[in-house]
This record gives sequence, C-alpha cells and structure tokens, in this order.
Amino acid sequence: MRLQATGITGFDEMLGGGVPEGKVVLVCGGPGAGKTILTTQTMMQALGRGERCLYATLEEPMKNIKENALNFGWNLEEWEKKGLLKTLDVLMIPDGNEAPGRDRGSGDSEFFTIKTIIEGAKTHGAKWVFLDPLTSLVIQEPRSGRKRHVIGELFESLRKLGCGAIVTSEAAPQEGDFYMEQFLADGVILLTKEVKDYNLIKTIRIDKMRGVGFDEQPRRYAITTRGFQVMNREPILV
Amino acid sequence: MRLQATGITGFDEMLGGGVPEGKVVLVCGGPGAGKTILTTQTMMQALGRGERCLYATLEEPMKNIKENALNFGWNLEEWEKKGLLKTLDVLMIPDGNEAPGRDRGSGDSEFFTIKTIIEGAKTHGAKWVFLDPLTSLVIQEPRSGRKRHVIGELFESLRKLGCGAIVTSEAAPQEGDFYMEQFLADGVILLTKEVKDYNLIKTIRIDKMRGVGFDEQPRRYAITTRGFQVMNREPILV
Amino acid sequence: MRLQATGITGFDEMLGGGVPEGKVVLVCGGPGAGKTILTTQTMMQALGRGERCLYATLEEPMKNIKENALNFGWNLEEWEKKGLLKTLDVLMIPDGNEAPGRDRGSGDSEFFTIKTIIEGAKTHGAKWVFLDPLTSLVIQEPRSGRKRHVIGELFESLRKLGCGAIVTSEAAPQEGDFYMEQFLADGVILLTKEVKDYNLIKTIRIDKMRGVGFDEQPRRYAITTRGFQVMNREPILV
Amino acid sequence: MRLQATGITGFDEMLGGGVPEGKVVLVCGGPGAGKTILTTQTMMQALGRGERCLYATLEEPMKNIKENALNFGWNLEEWEKKGLLKTLDVLMIPDGNEAPGRDRGSGDSEFFTIKTIIEGAKTHGAKWVFLDPLTSLVIQEPRSGRKRHVIGELFESLRKLGCGAIVTSEAAPQEGDFYMEQFLADGVILLTKEVKDYNLIKTIRIDKMRGVGFDEQPRRYAITTRGFQVMNREPILV
Amino acid sequence: MRLQATGITGFDEMLGGGVPEGKVVLVCGGPGAGKTILTTQTMMQALGRGERCLYATLEEPMKNIKENALNFGWNLEEWEKKGLLKTLDVLMIPDGNEAPGRDRGSGDSEFFTIKTIIEGAKTHGAKWVFLDPLTSLVIQEPRSGRKRHVIGELFESLRKLGCGAIVTSEAAPQEGDFYMEQFLADGVILLTKEVKDYNLIKTIRIDKMRGVGFDEQPRRYAITTRGFQVMNREPILV
Amino acid sequence: MRLQATGITGFDEMLGGGVPEGKVVLVCGGPGAGKTILTTQTMMQALGRGERCLYATLEEPMKNIKENALNFGWNLEEWEKKGLLKTLDVLMIPDGNEAPGRDRGSGDSEFFTIKTIIEGAKTHGAKWVFLDPLTSLVIQEPRSGRKRHVIGELFESLRKLGCGAIVTSEAAPQEGDFYMEQFLADGVILLTKEVKDYNLIKTIRIDKMRGVGFDEQPRRYAITTRGFQVMNREPILV
Repeated sequence: MRLQATGITGFDEMLGGGVPEGKVVLVCGGPGAGKTILTTQTMMQALGRGERCLYATLEEPMKNIKENALNFGWNLEEWEKKGLLKTLDVLMIPDGNEAPGRDRGSGDSEFFTIKTIIEGAKTHGAKWVFLDPLTSLVIQEPRSGRKRHVIGELFESLRKLGCGAIVTSEAAPQEGDFYMEQFLADGVILLTKEVKDYNLIKTIRIDKMRGVGFDEQPRRYAITTRGFQVMNREPILV
Repeated sequence: MRLQATGITGFDEMLGGGVPEGKVVLVCGGPGAGKTILTTQTMMQALGRGERCLYATLEEPMKNIKENALNFGWNLEEWEKKGLLKTLDVLMIPDGNEAPGRDRGSGDSEFFTIKTIIEGAKTHGAKWVFLDPLTSLVIQEPRSGRKRHVIGELFESLRKLGCGAIVTSEAAPQEGDFYMEQFLADGVILLTKEVKDYNLIKTIRIDKMRGVGFDEQPRRYAITTRGFQVMNREPILV
Repeated sequence: MRLQATGITGFDEMLGGGVPEGKVVLVCGGPGAGKTILTTQTMMQALGRGERCLYATLEEPMKNIKENALNFGWNLEEWEKKGLLKTLDVLMIPDGNEAPGRDRGSGDSEFFTIKTIIEGAKTHGAKWVFLDPLTSLVIQEPRSGRKRHVIGELFESLRKLGCGAIVTSEAAPQEGDFYMEQFLADGVILLTKEVKDYNLIKTIRIDKMRGVGFDEQPRRYAITTRGFQVMNREPILV
Repeated sequence: MRLQATGITGFDEMLGGGVPEGKVVLVCGGPGAGKTILTTQTMMQALGRGERCLYATLEEPMKNIKENALNFGWNLEEWEKKGLLKTLDVLMIPDGNEAPGRDRGSGDSEFFTIKTIIEGAKTHGAKWVFLDPLTSLVIQEPRSGRKRHVIGELFESLRKLGCGAIVTSEAAPQEGDFYMEQFLADGVILLTKEVKDYNLIKTIRIDKMRGVGFDEQPRRYAITTRGFQVMNREPILV
Repeated sequence: MRLQATGITGFDEMLGGGVPEGKVVLVCGGPGAGKTILTTQTMMQALGRGERCLYATLEEPMKNIKENALNFGWNLEEWEKKGLLKTLDVLMIPDGNEAPGRDRGSGDSEFFTIKTIIEGAKTHGAKWVFLDPLTSLVIQEPRSGRKRHVIGELFESLRKLGCGAIVTSEAAPQEGDFYMEQFLADGVILLTKEVKDYNLIKTIRIDKMRGVGFDEQPRRYAITTRGFQVMNREPILV
Repeated sequence: MRLQATGITGFDEMLGGGVPEGKVVLVCGGPGAGKTILTTQTMMQALGRGERCLYATLEEPMKNIKENALNFGWNLEEWEKKGLLKTLDVLMIPDGNEAPGRDRGSGDSEFFTIKTIIEGAKTHGAKWVFLDPLTSLVIQEPRSGRKRHVIGELFESLRKLGCGAIVTSEAAPQEGDFYMEQFLADGVILLTKEVKDYNLIKTIRIDKMRGVGFDEQPRRYAITTRGFQVMNREPILV
C-alpha cells in the first residue's frame, strides 16, 4: 500500500509514513479543534511537492477558507494560478436560493454534489481530494438508512479515484459513542479537547486506519502560527 | 489581521489584542453568565474610542437593555444622541403581533430580520455589530438543515460587513457537546459556571478564534459594578 | 435601582438589600423546596410594612394556599379584609371546565390569564406581584417558540408594572442545564436539595440578578415554623 | 393541624406524629420498595383504632392485595365484615373489557374513576383514603397538560374529603428529577433502594409535608414479617 | 404460603425455601446472564421431583432450547415422552407468516398467545409454568397503557393457575431505572453483569418477593457445566 | 457439541477450543475495533484447513474487503479460484439503484437478502458463513418488532445450516446497555476500546456462548500485521 505524507511530522510518524492512497480518511473534531487547518496544511505540503489537489468546501465560502489559510502563510490562490489546486464551492443550501452544485427538482441534491466533486477531481487529475465538512452534506437527511447510503456513495466514489482523500466531520464522539461515517470510512482521526482540573488538553488519536500499522495511542497536539504540531514522542501529562 | 480591542484588559490579553475584524465571534453562556454585560461593555469602550456601533436586540426590548446598562454606569442613550450608537429592536415574535423587523406573509421572518440588521449596520457605517441573542432568531425552527442555513446566512452577511461582530448564544455546552453555531462562527467564547464543593467558579475560555493565536486555557472571571473582569494571570484554584 | 426587602434576613443580605423594583425574579426549585413559602413569607412581610400585594395562584386553589400559610402563622384573609392583599385564582385547566381566568374559544388562554393578572395588579395598585407557578401557564404548550413568547409577554408585562415581581418555577435545573425562563427573567434564585453521603443538604443560590451586586455563592437554608431561614454567614459543610 | 398516626413508630416520629388530615400524601418508590405494605399497614392500624377506611386498588385485583396482606397477618376481609373497611376495584383497563369503574363512550374514564373513589369515600364516611397506584390512572395519557389536570382533580377532590389520603406512585425519582405528582401533592415520601459496594441500602425520606415540621433526613428502613420498620434513630452507615 | 424449591441450593436459601406458589416471578437480565438456564434448571429439578411443567418459548424455537439444555445434561424430550413436560412454541412474529399461537385478523395476537399458554397449563395440570421471554410478547406494542394491560392480563391469568410461574425479561435495569413488568410481577430477580477494574462480576439479587421473607442482598453467581450456582454465603469481593 | 477453531490461539483458548458448530456468533465493536479482521482471519485459517466458506458483505464492496485483507497477506481471490471460498456482495441500498441481492417491489428486501445468503451457503456446501455487518441489514427498519423478526429469521436460518456462523455488528454496547441482536444470538463477542488516563486499552470479552464453557473475563488484544492477537494469559493492566 502506497502512503502519502501529510507533511505534519508527528502525525506522519503516527501513521507510519502518511495516509494510504485510495482510502477515505475522516477527521472528526469539535469546534476549534483544527480540522480545516489539518486539512489545508496537508494540502499545502502536497502542493509544495507538486501534487495536484482538489479542495471542496460544503459549508464556508472558499473565500473565507483562503483568508483563514493566509494567517498561516498559506496562499491558496497562488497555487490555483499555478494550476495545481482546484477549489469547489459546493455549498449545501436547502431552500431554493441560487447556489452552485445543486440539482433542483430531482430531490437528489446530495448525489448531484457528490458527482460534482468526483468529476472535478477526475478532470483535474487530483492526487488528493479534500472535503470540508461531510456534516453539511447529510444534515437535512433525518432517515439513517438514506444517510448511510449518501455517505457510502461518497466514500466509495472517493475510493475509486485512487488518490488521498481527507473528509472532515463536525463531531467529537464521546467514549463509546460513534457516528455512522466512522464505520464507513477507511481511516478515522479523532481530535479531542478536554478540560481537566481547569486545564485544556488537546489530543489526536488514530482510531482506525485500514491497510497500515499505526500508533494507536492518543497524542497531544497544538496549533501554532505554523499550523498543526503533534507531540507524538512526549507523554500527554508531564 | 486587524484586531479590535474589547477594552476588557484580561480578555484582550487572552485574545492577543482583541477580536479579529471581519470575523463573527459567538459568546455562549447560561443564564446570568454575563453575555449581555460582556457585549455592552465592549461596545461602551468602542464608543468611547469613537467607533460607530450597532446593537440589535432580539429578545429583550432595548429599553430594558439600556436600563440594565445604567447599573454599570453605561449610558447608551447618550451615545445614541451623539450619533455613534444605533440600536435596533428586532424582537422575534412568532404570533402575528405588531412588532418591528418582521416580514409577515413570506414565512421568511428570519431572513427579513437578518436583512434589517445588515442594512442597519451598513447605513450606520458600523465598525462593530452586536447581536443578542442568536437563540431568539432560530428557536421556532425545528429542522436542523434549515436552522443551519439561517445561521450560515447571518454569519456570512456579518463577515461581509468587515467589522467586529459579537453574537450571544443562550447555551453553555457541556464537555463534548456542541451547538451548530459554534462550528459556523469564526470565534467561540465559552462562559461557564460550576458549583464545585459548594463553591461557585466562573470561567471564560476561548474555544476557537480563526486567524489569531490566543490563550486557550480557561480563566476565572467576575462581574463587578464596573463590569467584566478577567483574572487571566491567576490560577483558577488557589 | 430601588430594592425591596423580602424580610428574610439572610436572603436580603445575599441580595444586597432586597429584590430590585421593576424586575422579574424567578424562584426555581423541586417539590418541597419551599418556593411557595419563600413567596408567601416575602408577601407577609411586605403587607406588614403596608405595601399592597397581588398573589396569583395558577395551580392550587387559593383556599389551600391560605390554609398552608396559616401553619406559619400567616393569615392571608386578614390582609385581604384590610384591603392590602388581593388574591387571584387563575387556575389553568385545559379541558373546558368552569374556571376563572379563561378565554374559551380564542385558543389564547395563556394571554388571557396574563392580562387578568396584570389588570388585577394595576387596579389594586400593587407594589408586589407574586405568581405561583409559571409551570402551569406553559405546560400544555409543546412548541418552544410559542412558549418563549408566552413567557416573554408575561415577564415584559410584569416589568412594566414597575413593582417587585416574584414568579415560581417547578424546576431545579441540574448543573449545566437551563430552562428557557431563566434566560428571560431578570433574576434567578435556585433552591437545591442534595443527598450527600445520606445527608440532605438544602442550598439557595442567586444565579442571576440584573442591576445589583449580589452574593453569588450557594448558601444553606432551612424551613422552620417561622418560615425560610438562610444561613448566609456559615459554611455549608461543617 | 390535626395529625393522624400511621402506627409505624419510626415513621410517625419522622412526621412529628402522623400525616396531616386533609392533605394528600404521595408515597413514591420502585418495585419491591414496600409502597403497598406501608399503605396497608397504616390502614390496619387505623382500622384497629376504629377509624373507617377506603382502599381503592387501580392495578391489582383486591383479591391479591388481601392475599398479600395475610402474609403480614393482616386480615382485610375481617374488617370489611365489621363494616369499617370498604375496598374498591377500580382497575384502569384501556381496551373495552368489562371492568368496574369505567365510563365507556365519554373518553373521560379517569374522571369517572376519580368520581367513583370520592363518592365511595363519602358514602363510607372514611377517615382515611388509600389509592394504589396513581400510575395506573394516568399511564395512557401522554399529554402533560391533561395528565396534570387529572392528577390535580384527584388531589383536590381528596383534599375536600378532609381525611387522611395516601396515594402510591410507581416511581423512584433520581437526584434532581421530579414527577409532576410530587409538585401537586401536599406530602411526598420517597422510598429508595441503592446498591453501594455490593450492599443494598433502603432509605425512606420525607421530601415534602405541607403544614407540619418533619425530620427531613433520609432514614434506613426494613420490611419484616411484621411490616414496615423505620430505623430513624440510627445512622444509615455503621 | 407454600414454597416450591427451584433446586438451586443457594438461590433457594436466598428465597427462604423456594418461590411462592401462585405468584409470578420475573427473572431480568442482559444477554448471557443465564435467564434461560435458571429457568430450565428449575424446571428439570421440578420434573425430577415428579412435578408437571409447562414451558412456553416466545422467541427461540423449542428445538434450540432443547439442544442448549442438552449441554447441561438436561434431556427435555425424555420428560416430554414421560408426559410430565409440555412445551409450547408460541413465537410472536409480527408479519403474517404461518406461526403457531396467533389469532390473525383480530389484532389481538398477544391476548390469543396468553390464552394458548394458560389453556395449555390447565390441560396439562401444570404445577409450574415457564415463559421465556416476556419481551417478545410486548415488543411490537409502543403504547405504554396497552403494554401494561397485556402484561397485567398475563400475570393475572398466571396467578389464577395457582402454580409456580417464572417469566424471563430481556432487561437489566440500571440503578434507579425500572421496567413496567417489575411493578406488576409478584417477585423480581435481577441478574447483573458488571466489569469492574477489568474483572467481570456477576450478581443475583431478589428485588421483590411478595409473601415471603428473603435475603435482599446481591450475591455472586456462576454458570458451570452443571448449571446455575449461587455463592450466597461468600462475600462478593474477596 | 463440536467446536470449530478460529485459529486465533488466545481466542480459541478463551472459547475452550473454538466456536460451537450450528450456533450464531455475533462480534460487536466500534469503528476500528477489528471486527472484519477477526472475521477474515478466522476464514483464512478455515480455508487453510480445507473448510468451505461463504463470505457475505452487506456494506462494503467485496473488492475493498479483498484489498484490505491483502495487507495481512490474506489472498481471498486465490481461495475463490481454488473453489473453497464463495463471496457475495449483498449490499443493502435503500433507493432503487441497480444492486445485487434486492427484491424490488415486494418491500421485503431484507428477507430476500437473507434467502440469497442462505441459498448461497447451501449451494456452496459451506462449513462456515461470515456476514459483515448485520447493521446494514436492519438500519432502515425503525419498528423494533419488525427488526427483531428480521434478525430472528436470519439467525434461525443460519442455525439450520449447521455450520459455524460469524456475524458482525457495528455497536459497542456500554455497561448495562444491550442491542436486540445480542439476545437473539447464541454467542456474543464484545470488542471494546477505552482511553484510560490517556492510554488506549483494547479488550475482547465473551459475553455469551451457548453450549460451551468459556473464559468470561475481558482480555487484552492487539491487531498486528499478522492479524488479531489475544493476550489471554496476561493481566490487562501491568
């Protein structure tokens, strides 16, 4: 199995080199956990190695993503101009407004969005696909059978692309609670914030990664001006 | 990224200077946590520096807000007369009474309210927008997809204004629980009250703040006759 | 801000003198916490000072309230005869029986009840209004938007009266849980019973009180033959 | 206020003599807590003092109640023959079978049952009314407004009788959780079973008792061949 | 009250001799707790004493029950041939397949099943009735009033038989949680599994047993090749 | 009872030799617990002993299962070619797409899927049947009575085959919580992940295994490049 480095040293070490090609990796975390930062940083380092990337945003306009990235010194537009990066605004809006990426009339807007992303990745010849967040794709679907089908369809379509695929999820499952998407993904990364004795502790844990051996223990991480930093060689409590 | 000081010393220190311009900052807290005080105090200090402000109240009549502010020595009407402060009563009332800020007949009163606020801010040339509370805007909407859309629309409209935006939320998420608005906001401030061994402890924590480095640890705070006071340099437990 | 003493020494000390005039103070507690006793005792002491009072009962017939009050030596009928006390039986009964305070046919019985109370207070020239319990007013309304509107309407109408207003709520929110009415009230008093190591501990805590400084720590209380007693100067655990 | 002794020594001591006449006392407890035993024992001792009693069973046929009572040496039929005891089978059965105490066609079977009980008590000239359990009366009513009305109607009707009234409830509220009937009753007795370090501990606690002072601490109890025994003078843990 | 020994020594000692005749005893436990083993073992020992038994299975085909029993050396068919044991397959299947024990068309299949069991017991002249599990009888009934009626009907019918009745329930109520059937049964046996410090501990506790004194403390048990073994004379933790 | 070894040494030791023939064994676990690995590894070792196997996948395409197996050096296609392994893609897709294993029009797709699997096993003369996961079969069925019937039908059909049957379930029941399928299965294996003091601990526990004695204590396990490894002779905490 070929691995694709994320460029985040400690995280790549936990992964045994990087994320496995052709697998769908889910990044789960609460607000402010750094899901988008992890995703964008991985992308920036792939772009720096000359790998073609697709970034699809389902919640925030691409404009905001770009602006926030600039705070870390990551200039997405530069890479768009170079032709290595393709971005897609596939905002899921349930009311009938003019928005890109929607198939009005068919009642199957989720499947239309999936198709838009997959075709975008193919056309671009992407080596990586980033999707942020999955939550927006399925939030208006209350039936769990149908929700599972949408997620299954997306993940299977991403797998067929054969590239690295990172999908974020706005969820931080508690001990013993799971979200459907965690079963359907090939890899699951959990970002957790905990206040213990009035002290905030942030940990990253690989809960699942099909096809590779990995460090399964939780590790502390921080978000600095240079992005994600994983302290995988230090104990969590000092 | 330009920062706008709130004037609350300890809080500004936690923020590394202030709230980032053009971002939506959510202040979450339970009853009596001081959300409205934090908001009004920030506004008073901005007004004192000559910055134009818009204050939109969605729950309590502006009259009450003004009266409560007077207890801290904050005279809002004075600033209205000076023309620096504009206030809006955009009370969300679901029954058909005569109330400002409602589009009867369209079934889209939330969007009408958002429009009223944004246009008010533009006309006034506001450098700050304050909205208190978000909860009132979405309480009668049970569908999560639609709720997300209303919140997304509001936050995106506020961002486009390019000023400081502070929105309160009547919620104090427990460890590991989140509210939708926390994902959609750029910044999240959590105000927490806890009774531990029959002793009340109040803490403020920045859970998220896109675009700036910040002190992520919880800090103790108090509400005095002069308003919010953040003890960011002291340990929480002595 | 003018304060009105409740006459319960320890509680008035916690409040810095009394409840602020023109504000709505909510008293929350479980069964047997003493909500009605706190309310009636405050009223008796106000009557003793010659202040006009309105007591509206929404759940139990006034007859029972009077009978229970007699156990503490409080003779309500005597004050009714003197003309200082006015009582209202505004029982909320959802089935169509003959009951005072209901507007049959309009589907707006909550608003009719509110109107009855407010007009009663005005006519009587009340300096205090007591309402016991709020729970009965909103129990048959499942929609949270509408419930909020009823509570908002009641509280705002009470504020306009400009007198002391004490409203009870049959709820004892757990740590981190809140009831809608706590956000809408100006003041919130929490009465808590806890069995710790097979020992019952009863505490009173002011969770919120707009417009005044107050003792925010929980304090032990007891109910004696002379009514409410707050031990605000003693530690909770000895 | 006149008190009526239950004859259970420790319990009467906790109550300061007995249950107050004309008040509704609720006995809450889980399965096997001894609610029916407490009720029957109180009745037996009242009968022994020559006081007229009405026992209404809403769940189990009276035949079973009598049989179980015999295990404690309590012969109910003997007292029926003497004319001091009247029993009522008011089984609440929601399907249309032939059962006493139901008003078919009106949809108001709960009110019919209440009327049956109250009239039975009046005719018999009862000094005590026992109802076991309340749960059966309201189990098929999902709307909380309506449920409250049924319970309110029952309790108010019992109060008007002016005798001792004991009503059981199949519930053992957890710390901080309450049942509607606890607010509406004049007195609340909680029977609790807890397994602590693999040791069962049973406690009785008076949570509320309008009109009288009482011992509010939890006390250990046991059920022996002679019925309820309350160890109110011993510490719970030795 | 006459007691019928189960033949499980430690358990009979806890019961003071056995289960009371004419009472309905519920055995509650999670998967793998041994409910069916406890039931079958009691039956085997009754058969060995020459007592006539009826075993009604509501979930698994009798064929499987027999096969599993053989692992403990219990040959049910042998006893069927001897005429002492009667077995009934009253599988509750909600869709219209050919299954014994169903009254198609009436919508009252639960009552038909109950009738089948009771008549089977009468015809056979059973001294014991075993029903496994109750859960299957009521799982498709969401209305609690109706569910209570079905359970009540079953239990009352069993009581009238005047023999020993053991009914299993697929539930292991947590501390302070109860199932409706526990209130309606005469006896309740709780089988509990707990993992404490990575060590599994299994306990049996009699929560209720009308008509007899019993050991109310939890006791450790094991399932061996010879069936249920209750260590009622040893401490749970060594 | 004949046992079939899984070939996972420590697990077979826990089982006293292997899984009992003709019984349905459920493997429950959260994401990344290794359910599919345990299943596939058991199958590989059975194939190596020359035993015929059927593997039915209900969620992921067989192609992915094969690819993931290759990471452990398990070549499924090789065994398909040898004729010992038969695989079935019985994907449950609720919308009407072209998918194998569905009976369109009858509304009974679950029963059609069960039939497909059972007939596949018979035709192939399977000594083992593997089903992964059960969750997909019942996720679109909200009614618990119907769900129970589908699971019951599947399990009973598998039992009749008389071979080893291993079924996975996407669930990791918490202490005291159960899933319906755990009651209906003959054996239940629980795979648990717990983060304790920032250290991940993975345990396997046999919760139930009809017909055989087994080690009921939880044991630590790991997933290595050679598959499942159970440390059944070591303490969990060192």
